[in-house]
Amino acid sequence: MLNVYLSGEIHSNWRDEIIQLCQNQKLEISFSSPITNHDASDNCGVEILGPEENNFWKDNKGAKINSIKTRKAITDCDLVVVKFGDKYKQWNAAFDAGFASALNKSVIVIHNDDHQHALKEIDASASAVAKDQDQVVRILKYILEGSLN
Amino acid sequence: MLNVYLSGEIHSNWRDEIIQLCQNQKLEISFSSPITNHDASDNCGVEILGPEENNFWKDNKGAKINSIKTRKAITDCDLVVVKFGDKYKQWNAAFDAGFASALNKSVIVIHNDDHQHALKEIDASASAVAKDQDQVVRILKYILEGSLN
Amino acid sequence: MLNVYLSGEIHSNWRDEIIQLCQNQKLEISFSSPITNHDASDNCGVEILGPEENNFWKDNKGAKINSIKTRKAITDCDLVVVKFGDKYKQWNAAFDAGFASALNKSVIVIHNDDHQHALKEIDASASAVAKDQDQVVRILKYILEGSLN
Amino acid sequence: MLNVYLSGEIHSNWRDEIIQLCQNQKLEISFSSPITNHDASDNCGVEILGPEENNFWKDNKGAKINSIKTRKAITDCDLVVVKFGDKYKQWNAAFDAGFASALNKSVIVIHNDDHQHALKEIDASASAVAKDQDQVVRILKYILEGSLN
Amino acid sequence: MLNVYLSGEIHSNWRDEIIQLCQNQKLEISFSSPITNHDASDNCGVEILGPEENNFWKDNKGAKINSIKTRKAITDCDLVVVKFGDKYKQWNAAFDAGFASALNKSVIVIHNDDHQHALKEIDASASAVAKDQDQVVRILKYILEGSLN
Amino acid sequence: MLNVYLSGEIHSNWRDEIIQLCQNQKLEISFSSPITNHDASDNCGVEILGPEENNFWKDNKGAKINSIKTRKAITDCDLVVVKFGDKYKQWNAAFDAGFASALNKSVIVIHNDDHQHALKEIDASASAVAKDQDQVVRILKYILEGSLN
Amino acid sequence: MLNVYLSGEIHSNWRDEIIQLCQNQKLEISFSSPITNHDASDNCGVEILGPEENNFWKDNKGAKINSIKTRKAITDCDLVVVKFGDKYKQWNAAFDAGFASALNKSVIVIHNDDHQHALKEIDASASAVAKDQDQVVRILKYILEGSLN
Amino acid sequence: MLNVYLSGEIHSNWRDEIIQLCQNQKLEISFSSPITNHDASDNCGVEILGPEENNFWKDNKGAKINSIKTRKAITDCDLVVVKFGDKYKQWNAAFDAGFASALNKSVIVIHNDDHQHALKEIDASASAVAKDQDQVVRILKYILEGSLN
Repeated sequence: MLNVYLSGEIHSNWRDEIIQLCQNQKLEISFSSPITNHDASDNCGVEILGPEENNFWKDNKGAKINSIKTRKAITDCDLVVVKFGDKYKQWNAAFDAGFASALNKSVIVIHNDDHQHALKEIDASASAVAKDQDQVVRILKYILEGSLN
Repeated sequence: MLNVYLSGEIHSNWRDEIIQLCQNQKLEISFSSPITNHDASDNCGVEILGPEENNFWKDNKGAKINSIKTRKAITDCDLVVVKFGDKYKQWNAAFDAGFASALNKSVIVIHNDDHQHALKEIDASASAVAKDQDQVVRILKYILEGSLN
Repeated sequence: MLNVYLSGEIHSNWRDEIIQLCQNQKLEISFSSPITNHDASDNCGVEILGPEENNFWKDNKGAKINSIKTRKAITDCDLVVVKFGDKYKQWNAAFDAGFASALNKSVIVIHNDDHQHALKEIDASASAVAKDQDQVVRILKYILEGSLN
Repeated sequence: MLNVYLSGEIHSNWRDEIIQLCQNQKLEISFSSPITNHDASDNCGVEILGPEENNFWKDNKGAKINSIKTRKAITDCDLVVVKFGDKYKQWNAAFDAGFASALNKSVIVIHNDDHQHALKEIDASASAVAKDQDQVVRILKYILEGSLN
Repeated sequence: MLNVYLSGEIHSNWRDEIIQLCQNQKLEISFSSPITNHDASDNCGVEILGPEENNFWKDNKGAKINSIKTRKAITDCDLVVVKFGDKYKQWNAAFDAGFASALNKSVIVIHNDDHQHALKEIDASASAVAKDQDQVVRILKYILEGSLN
Repeated sequence: MLNVYLSGEIHSNWRDEIIQLCQNQKLEISFSSPITNHDASDNCGVEILGPEENNFWKDNKGAKINSIKTRKAITDCDLVVVKFGDKYKQWNAAFDAGFASALNKSVIVIHNDDHQHALKEIDASASAVAKDQDQVVRILKYILEGSLN
Repeated sequence: MLNVYLSGEIHSNWRDEIIQLCQNQKLEISFSSPITNHDASDNCGVEILGPEENNFWKDNKGAKINSIKTRKAITDCDLVVVKFGDKYKQWNAAFDAGFASALNKSVIVIHNDDHQHALKEIDASASAVAKDQDQVVRILKYILEGSLN
Repeated sequence: MLNVYLSGEIHSNWRDEIIQLCQNQKLEISFSSPITNHDASDNCGVEILGPEENNFWKDNKGAKINSIKTRKAITDCDLVVVKFGDKYKQWNAAFDAGFASALNKSVIVIHNDDHQHALKEIDASASAVAKDQDQVVRILKYILEGSLN
């Protein structure tokens, strides 16, 4: 059994792809993810704890609530898979990678070639740098079953 | 005596500003920084350990050498000041903030309003979010001397 | 599955409220609590280990036995919810929050507005500051299911 | 050489008393303290980082800046001396004691008899419970020089 | 569920007493113990790994094999109960208590009055000092069920 | 239940021997192993993540993927059994032993007499030095059941 | 520079012997010791913090004050030298060895042959078992200067 | 100031080369090394603590004494430089690299091309893989001064 945290962009369905492919292969993996409902993720702070006039505090309340889930997920997992997509700054993804690295967790990074130079420090801390979800699933299958097919 | 690591962008002279202002105030602070010579930082791997055809490996060798300095600096410091500037992706800065946070170090973030929403997770983990170097120096002075002037 | 420790005042039924509301929502949470029988909590030391003339030692024996439960609960949990009520000093609640914070656990504080200034250091270390039990349950539901309803 | 952090109430001059008495005895101790200028401590957040309409955020900004000093002081020290005085809630003092305890630091508590029952959990975690500053200084002298005179 | 390691003397049946009494009360506790077969414990090293002429190395081989079990038991448990009996030096019991204490585990010591002065340092590190097995079982029941009866 | 990681040479079937013998004895042990398919282990990096001209990077990619499994296995286990065989340098086996030792895990080493002097530092850090798989199984049985037969 | 804590019996002058011999050899070592004034060590609690009728609490107060020194000394040192003499139970010495061992500190034990069997677990955790102070000084000299003369 | 531990082979003067070159460059580095007198290193156990008939125990006593120095050196350093030479098995060098890696220390490996495949796991955990001492000195200079010349 492997515990894998899927960190990073929440605007595409890459997590579902990985989870589905692993289920197809019957790999014994327990996945955790951040809240991927973008609206809920942005608004949870003010929705639950009350409104803020200033966007800084609105975001602060939301990000702190989301950190409860992230912190548990990284602490409990064996491996963080972090995807850097094409849009947005995605600094939280890089933050998660640093947090995981300090806890001596393994990290797999997914990104395309355009981001190669900008991600060099994070790639250098990772156990694998994958081009896409398929490569990640192949790694997971290999780790669990020793098979490259 | 406070040990402060100045993480983040290496394209402006913000570190020198902070160091100079603290020296003017005679604050007892020991600063550490990454290598800020951009060319040397990018090329150290291949310059020292031999050339690579593939940029990925060129960057990998360089980033790993630079990590020797970063890891020591974060591990030894009391406080990480991390500046997000206007240019580049700066994922290494976010990675440093996550690494420091997992080690229970205090973090001060510097950024302007444009980055507020994108940096919400990192701001939420920080002890202070400053607009510029002056605010950081005022915090350092207050921490060391209790004075707000 | 989330492990939540409910620290703080033992003179109202706020723990039962949270547990009941979470059960109604079928949230997968394992709760732990200190001994909430006030009499037993105060007297366990002398009842089990023998009488003391001096109240200091009576309390010392009791508090040390209670610490066995508290230490395990904080160490094992993902999240500490700590409620500051209207009565008593509740220094043990603040102690628990500090202990949890040093272990890098997430903390949610519940208190009303009267205590806002006095609790500022603890609020500042927390992932959320809630006004009541309902807000806490909404956070727990959001963390586990991503839903704000 | 002993590193001692003096936590707790900032409304009396108890820190100066301890420091002065130790200097009279030529004890080799390095003391650290929180900012004891009450006004500066309350206002540092908004003074340095800008005003807030809501007191919660004013206090949040201030408490977070003060936490930079507190965290370093507790992490670096061998011993925390924490005084509970007659006024205010002093929850931050209890928080510091919990934080120190989780890091396996020694703690000495100072309080008078009125607070005995309310402080039982913190007393139970402490290496000594002193009635006043003189007793603390005698402990420090004994620890460093083995003398009870 | 509580994980309890029963350290200390292996010449009486005190472990069975505690385990039986807890089973009678249906307390949810998982107990671990060192090997209590005295002959096997003394001879395991040479029996398994080959004979030694020198008693020092015979004992060294045996004690090291036994340490595999002890280290796991202390690391995994929430609470160490350590009994000091009337016979032998029982230095390994004191060693276990120190090991557990450094890992911030709770410790309950059992000893009679004769050993009070000699055990003062270990008693001072403990969460409870019990006179017999009954007191330990009452503590365990109280911790798990809040009942003093 | 004991968690045992079987580190070291992957060119003989020593792991199967140990696992089979333990199953015969119905010992409650959960075993983990590195990938023991030598070809897959050597080629996983380039097979999954793409080819490399330089053997150094081919091996680097493969070894990093394998480290995901090894790091998890050592972190999760109670005991590392590491076998040094007759062939190859087996530096990874010694690396695993050092990694485990720093995490305060117990280690059992298997090697024949020829390697005695060269392995003295690793033997000195181990809880047992066994000549063959049978001795390891006897240790495991003794640890779990207290029996030397 | 080596930091050495000299734990164990306080009834002979073995610490002075080691310190004197190391000074003669001009070895760069910083030694720390518990309070070796037996009377002061036993009475510090009641002398400083007030009398107790019950010896248990008298000893508890004293042992807790002494633990401030011991905990700092073990935490700061590289090496604990612990001597088991002929008299008394010396359980605190064994406790210190266990505490140090859990922190991954090196330990040297001094004892004569009579105690060999009773100290087997502590010897098995140690880096060296010496017969007397001279052997310890030779080890310290060798560690610092590489010389066996 | 950088603290560097020079681990690995003790049969050539590679440590002196590095230290001399760094001194020539006036680099602020504090170096530590194992005992490099091969005879003393092999015999320290029996020379100091008494003879053994069995080589296993002779080596065990020596290796344990040497571990006092190694453990301190790795724990205190920022960076381990480990050289694999042409002769001997050098398993202790690989053990040191694993120990350092688990403590999140940076590692630089030196080896020639012949050992590339056999050292792939250790290379994969390292911050740099150097061909010779000159490359290491260039890295150290770059880390400390940012200069590639």
